[in-house]
Amino acid sequence: MSKQEKLWSKGKPLSEKIEAFTIGRDLEFDKILAKYDVIGSKAQATMLAESGLISKEEGQQLVAELNGLFNEVIADDFVIPTGYEDVHSWIEARLTDKLGDAGKKIHTARSRNDQVLTDLHLYCKDVLSQLIEKTEHLALLLVDQAKKFNDTIIPGYTHLQVAMPSSGGMWFSAYAEALADDLIVLKSALKIADQNPLGSAAGYGSSFPIDREVTTNEMGFSQLKVNSFAAQLNRGKLEKNVTNAIASVAQTIGRFAMDVCLYNSQNFGFITLPDELTTGSSIMPHKKNPDVFELIRGKCNLLQGVPFQVTSLMNNLPGGYHREYQLLKELLFPSVHDMMSILEILEFAVPQMKLKGADTKDEKYKLMYTVEAVNAEVMKGKPFRDAYKIVGEQVENGSFSIENGDQNYTHIGSIGNPGFDLIIKKIKAE
Amino acid sequence: MSKQEKLWSKGKPLSEKIEAFTIGRDLEFDKILAKYDVIGSKAQATMLAESGLISKEEGQQLVAELNGLFNEVIADDFVIPTGYEDVHSWIEARLTDKLGDAGKKIHTARSRNDQVLTDLHLYCKDVLSQLIEKTEHLALLLVDQAKKFNDTIIPGYTHLQVAMPSSGGMWFSAYAEALADDLIVLKSALKIADQNPLGSAAGYGSSFPIDREVTTNEMGFSQLKVNSFAAQLNRGKLEKNVTNAIASVAQTIGRFAMDVCLYNSQNFGFITLPDELTTGSSIMPHKKNPDVFELIRGKCNLLQGVPFQVTSLMNNLPGGYHREYQLLKELLFPSVHDMMSILEILEFAVPQMKLKGADTKDEKYKLMYTVEAVNAEVMKGKPFRDAYKIVGEQVENGSFSIENGDQNYTHIGSIGNPGFDLIIKKIKAE
Amino acid sequence: MSKQEKLWSKGKPLSEKIEAFTIGRDLEFDKILAKYDVIGSKAQATMLAESGLISKEEGQQLVAELNGLFNEVIADDFVIPTGYEDVHSWIEARLTDKLGDAGKKIHTARSRNDQVLTDLHLYCKDVLSQLIEKTEHLALLLVDQAKKFNDTIIPGYTHLQVAMPSSGGMWFSAYAEALADDLIVLKSALKIADQNPLGSAAGYGSSFPIDREVTTNEMGFSQLKVNSFAAQLNRGKLEKNVTNAIASVAQTIGRFAMDVCLYNSQNFGFITLPDELTTGSSIMPHKKNPDVFELIRGKCNLLQGVPFQVTSLMNNLPGGYHREYQLLKELLFPSVHDMMSILEILEFAVPQMKLKGADTKDEKYKLMYTVEAVNAEVMKGKPFRDAYKIVGEQVENGSFSIENGDQNYTHIGSIGNPGFDLIIKKIKAE
Amino acid sequence: MSKQEKLWSKGKPLSEKIEAFTIGRDLEFDKILAKYDVIGSKAQATMLAESGLISKEEGQQLVAELNGLFNEVIADDFVIPTGYEDVHSWIEARLTDKLGDAGKKIHTARSRNDQVLTDLHLYCKDVLSQLIEKTEHLALLLVDQAKKFNDTIIPGYTHLQVAMPSSGGMWFSAYAEALADDLIVLKSALKIADQNPLGSAAGYGSSFPIDREVTTNEMGFSQLKVNSFAAQLNRGKLEKNVTNAIASVAQTIGRFAMDVCLYNSQNFGFITLPDELTTGSSIMPHKKNPDVFELIRGKCNLLQGVPFQVTSLMNNLPGGYHREYQLLKELLFPSVHDMMSILEILEFAVPQMKLKGADTKDEKYKLMYTVEAVNAEVMKGKPFRDAYKIVGEQVENGSFSIENGDQNYTHIGSIGNPGFDLIIKKIKAE
Repeated sequence: MSKQEKLWSKGKPLSEKIEAFTIGRDLEFDKILAKYDVIGSKAQATMLAESGLISKEEGQQLVAELNGLFNEVIADDFVIPTGYEDVHSWIEARLTDKLGDAGKKIHTARSRNDQVLTDLHLYCKDVLSQLIEKTEHLALLLVDQAKKFNDTIIPGYTHLQVAMPSSGGMWFSAYAEALADDLIVLKSALKIADQNPLGSAAGYGSSFPIDREVTTNEMGFSQLKVNSFAAQLNRGKLEKNVTNAIASVAQTIGRFAMDVCLYNSQNFGFITLPDELTTGSSIMPHKKNPDVFELIRGKCNLLQGVPFQVTSLMNNLPGGYHREYQLLKELLFPSVHDMMSILEILEFAVPQMKLKGADTKDEKYKLMYTVEAVNAEVMKGKPFRDAYKIVGEQVENGSFSIENGDQNYTHIGSIGNPGFDLIIKKIKAE
Repeated sequence: MSKQEKLWSKGKPLSEKIEAFTIGRDLEFDKILAKYDVIGSKAQATMLAESGLISKEEGQQLVAELNGLFNEVIADDFVIPTGYEDVHSWIEARLTDKLGDAGKKIHTARSRNDQVLTDLHLYCKDVLSQLIEKTEHLALLLVDQAKKFNDTIIPGYTHLQVAMPSSGGMWFSAYAEALADDLIVLKSALKIADQNPLGSAAGYGSSFPIDREVTTNEMGFSQLKVNSFAAQLNRGKLEKNVTNAIASVAQTIGRFAMDVCLYNSQNFGFITLPDELTTGSSIMPHKKNPDVFELIRGKCNLLQGVPFQVTSLMNNLPGGYHREYQLLKELLFPSVHDMMSILEILEFAVPQMKLKGADTKDEKYKLMYTVEAVNAEVMKGKPFRDAYKIVGEQVENGSFSIENGDQNYTHIGSIGNPGFDLIIKKIKAE
Repeated sequence: MSKQEKLWSKGKPLSEKIEAFTIGRDLEFDKILAKYDVIGSKAQATMLAESGLISKEEGQQLVAELNGLFNEVIADDFVIPTGYEDVHSWIEARLTDKLGDAGKKIHTARSRNDQVLTDLHLYCKDVLSQLIEKTEHLALLLVDQAKKFNDTIIPGYTHLQVAMPSSGGMWFSAYAEALADDLIVLKSALKIADQNPLGSAAGYGSSFPIDREVTTNEMGFSQLKVNSFAAQLNRGKLEKNVTNAIASVAQTIGRFAMDVCLYNSQNFGFITLPDELTTGSSIMPHKKNPDVFELIRGKCNLLQGVPFQVTSLMNNLPGGYHREYQLLKELLFPSVHDMMSILEILEFAVPQMKLKGADTKDEKYKLMYTVEAVNAEVMKGKPFRDAYKIVGEQVENGSFSIENGDQNYTHIGSIGNPGFDLIIKKIKAE
Repeated sequence: MSKQEKLWSKGKPLSEKIEAFTIGRDLEFDKILAKYDVIGSKAQATMLAESGLISKEEGQQLVAELNGLFNEVIADDFVIPTGYEDVHSWIEARLTDKLGDAGKKIHTARSRNDQVLTDLHLYCKDVLSQLIEKTEHLALLLVDQAKKFNDTIIPGYTHLQVAMPSSGGMWFSAYAEALADDLIVLKSALKIADQNPLGSAAGYGSSFPIDREVTTNEMGFSQLKVNSFAAQLNRGKLEKNVTNAIASVAQTIGRFAMDVCLYNSQNFGFITLPDELTTGSSIMPHKKNPDVFELIRGKCNLLQGVPFQVTSLMNNLPGGYHREYQLLKELLFPSVHDMMSILEILEFAVPQMKLKGADTKDEKYKLMYTVEAVNAEVMKGKPFRDAYKIVGEQVENGSFSIENGDQNYTHIGSIGNPGFDLIIKKIKAE
């Protein structure tokens, strides 16, 4: 950005400004796409040869050259050489340099948008699989913590008011079960990504007799995105589904992070964080702030807005490609990166979190046992509504007291019977 | 609203203002929920009896009374009698009136939030099933239109510029295939809704020995929302998933509507709409505006914003119930209603739409055949990049001409081979 | 809604469905616009007469009839008679009924969109003035509370961690000063609303020799929206500016409400709310939940999303009227209503809020005095960074102690010198 | 990003991951803030000396050293040396290195958040002034084009349907007048930015006897942000106001860009763009796509979403600093940069745009003269409603014809009297 910043402040020539404006962050993102572009080009070369649009020999040359390129582009220090508009033109140029006419034939029956779309489908499949794995892992770590702190009693809150007894087992495993729902959303996004758009060209197919089943198999897609125009309509919709799935995970984690920050406050004091995850203040020598969880919370909130940014780029545009779809990359790639980072950090942080029980004798927590007092009356035969009134009067006139609560919770999903196995089953469900 | 409007302008007593403020549109929405609340209460009564928390006889009395109530609340003219805060308190009062102590026992081991959550899960399951059915139906209607106008040639656009030949078959069935993706999202929302939260009480379960499997079976849920706190965390998340699925359909339909409005413009002239779907102007006697499709477009855009409104209500709130979750109903119910209306109107409108082919001899459409000219060169043996340059020069110097294009499109998903059966298979996929 | 709900579920005839779909909530909102439509029509009649497009006598007849109508439409029980599409056609019909040809002439040189736009400008001017007045009033009430609780010490938090001493004076008056910024936004929206669009017709003016200065003066607008197409471009932009200004106030109030809910929690215990503003639980007999403030918080969050809903309706649409602009009313009117309600309720609630000081001897609050310990060292001559280190070590090894803090705060904007007069001056600034 | 990308994929040590996660893009943005941080530090040093908190000599040393630093940080090749967390700690370290104890005293009576807030206020003031200047300039360029193409007739559209005659003068100058409204919003944001927060420390002031009027004057702020907690509440609110003002301009420009792309389509053909602003296709040799305007449109849509991203980061957080406020920079800085770029490119593009008149004899444009036919009848004495019916019947039975329209438009804001001077006056208004 600082480099671009200079552009508008220092009177660079207009052509550079326009170039910077139109290319944007594309070269940066194209580095990530390069690998998928090579995979797609290999499938294309194979298919062209099988369809007789190029010779078998040309096909083999192209595939061999692309295999070499694959190793180049996955190297740590790979950069797209200067002078190329994007990774696609660089790859075509390289093939032409090395192979002459065979290289000039690789773009037969496809278009650049086609390539970008194919690369994105491959990329999304890949990262969604990783996100699914990491999310499952996090969910299981939360169940581990739930088991560890199952007997630690903390108040449960409603309306931010002390309500009823809860526990470490309840609190940690609830977020695990919530992630199990997010996994459903991630998997539905994966299903949508797992369709081959290659061959749709500019969104209207082509008059070449290509065989799209070949590229589907070569690239490992489960099925074809059939209609060429539909393939193009999926630009933006694909990104929306992926960022939506990320947003779903972010919603769960964001709320978890808010709980952590709140319970880490001196006014609650239920959670202790490892020093690595807290930072100090420039003026207050006593501070240990839960910065990492605050940033997780913030990033999760921003991630939840990304699908809407996708929408606002797209809505009211008629069908067919429009150039600003390029900007979708600026929404998709950083979102994937941020969620990956968050999941990695939680993988470290969650097992280190310590939960301290609340002092249930503390005056402010006492009333969380009123429901049990009501229940005790009910078990003795009072109708619920009558029992509720009796205890209500005791609270009102100050006569309510309970000896620490019975805490005899037995039903599935209560603090006495948290159902961890059922939750694990959900997390691991197909 | 006009009634509420008066509240702030005319100096009503404060208590009425606060009541109006806190109740909001709840009574209106509770009418819709009433039916589900009765279903949930029946399951609760049955379970309480089976668990021995009430007698078998009390259980039977409650179920019988609730069966009667069911018929009342599904009647067209049902209104919640005045004097009740919500449908839940009215039902409890009715049961108590009729059955005395048995009525006072119905609320044993549940809370009002619990009920609302259960009602919402039942409601969402119900409407999602309807939306899935209607979306499938619309997709199939679009394929029908695609078949009907398969040979009608219209230009395909990219960048709003004439690009390559497209067809009625391509255009209509693309939206059908896009809806097939939306169906994946709808079904994943249904899976998330299909979990029984009942028994989670205020989000922390209860000390009653209830059997939540009984209510799960009674209400026909596929599985339990296990953890009580997770059940509460799902408030908002459920609404987010449902409105997200609606938004997904809305994205497809909104774009379709934009195409319709554009192609209906005199400057394109590809689409003719039935008179029922157009309206006139108060000053221009010649106008036939595509108002219905404009409103569909607009509503689809607003529907795409609803999940984000859900987010902005929820983010940064810690776990546990907060009163503003009541406002989620104002986001969920109208969204469901609007999407149902849109699907109903399209069910009528789509079969009546007429597509007129473009005059492919028109000067402005001629260049859409340049790619075919390139392809013809390639088929004769020229490498693609060289053929591209040759035709490019012809366009530049004005010598390009093509006799209407060959239009020999053979690959799956091209205008010559639209793959309708594959698309239908996707629409009907489980 | 329940009435509309029936439409899609019960097989009403299609024409009714389409009518319900296209009219939406327009009749409800038109009731609010009726008054402004009469004002605009009077200005139109006067201008037509002055421009010689109708006779002086016709002008007088129209104005007289419209004066009568004005009283009708502002009555509490006014409803637009059935059979009319909107308030505009009803008014024209009424004038024609009563006055014959003079009535048929009222629509000369204007269009319905023109009228709606004019009504909306008048409505927005009106409600913005009211919102400005109410916001100023609330800000002054907050300063009153600040004065009342100026000496009440509560901890100031950063990162939700106890940080430094704050006070009731600081806390209440901060929100007052924040509202002063919101007033700047409200006033800029008012300036944008205060432009006369009448005469722009369908957005392209007309060939009638009208005098738009006359209508500008008649309706009390400060200036003309000059360009007819610009007048139309302002549809949506006007609503965006008004809902943005409301969102600005909502941001301040929403955060205030969150503070209230948090400080009302037993874990903080700084705020006591009057019973009228709290409610109980259906199962926990002890609960007093801050429902009103939770709903205020929730509504404020939703209000902040409204300008974005306006955007998502509008973006990517080309210039000129589109039918979905009608849906802008569903965004604008409820927002105005909700903010009015919120301001009214706060007008009641704020003066009744009680702030309890924190127990500054409590172990968890002790460390909020570390900065003062550092400052004391600095005042004795130690460089700040060195003093910071010394106190930091004391905290670390547990030797830190301070006798309740000196609390000798003297600079403007500190707890010892809150600058109430400067804040009041900002609130009252033009 | 690609560098960060590696972090999660290649198993870097956790500490690096956490550091990368917490620092984010801060060093990149801090480069931009460096200049303002030096300005703020100078004001701080001067004030500390005037308040007697440091000696006059120390004050002078600090100011002299900071003057040198100023030149360093505004240099093109400035980078924050490695090893520093942010620009603030680097500056403090530099001062301490050079000046010893005087350097260690610069942080007296301020906090890092305080500094960031001050830097941001200074930055926002600066960029808002630039944006105001550039927006005014663009508006005037649009008026120039309006004058140039005042007599070029194009159809005016409503509902995307041909409606009434419009002109180049009408079309270009409408956007100029719309920008005049945006200027009101920009100026209101400037007013909000123009308040000095320095001295608010961590949001609760300090016990040092500082004189905040001194820093207000030194930095050239119009007034003080009085309340220390209010200063902190303004974090996020400031960014919201600035991005909102940018969004307001973006809304106007985005719509303008959509018009350009549409009118540039072969189906309209009203606008010709210079070659520098169009690009070709990888497979269609004939394409000249309006990429620059599409990207402007897309970026303008994304910019309109930024204020909502700000909201979603902030809402439901209680008062006081939270670490994720750092992420506000990632929203603010790129938005400013993007809008600056857009305005620069339009400064070049607008004067080069060519408008071609529509062929008003074309069958599809003929009906845009129906209103004039109605008006002609009215001028002969027919009531408007009767004249409307007559012409409506002519259109219906095909007998309508008009000889090219009279186009005798005389009222202000019509195509015959565009009111350019009034529009220019609005643009230049204070």
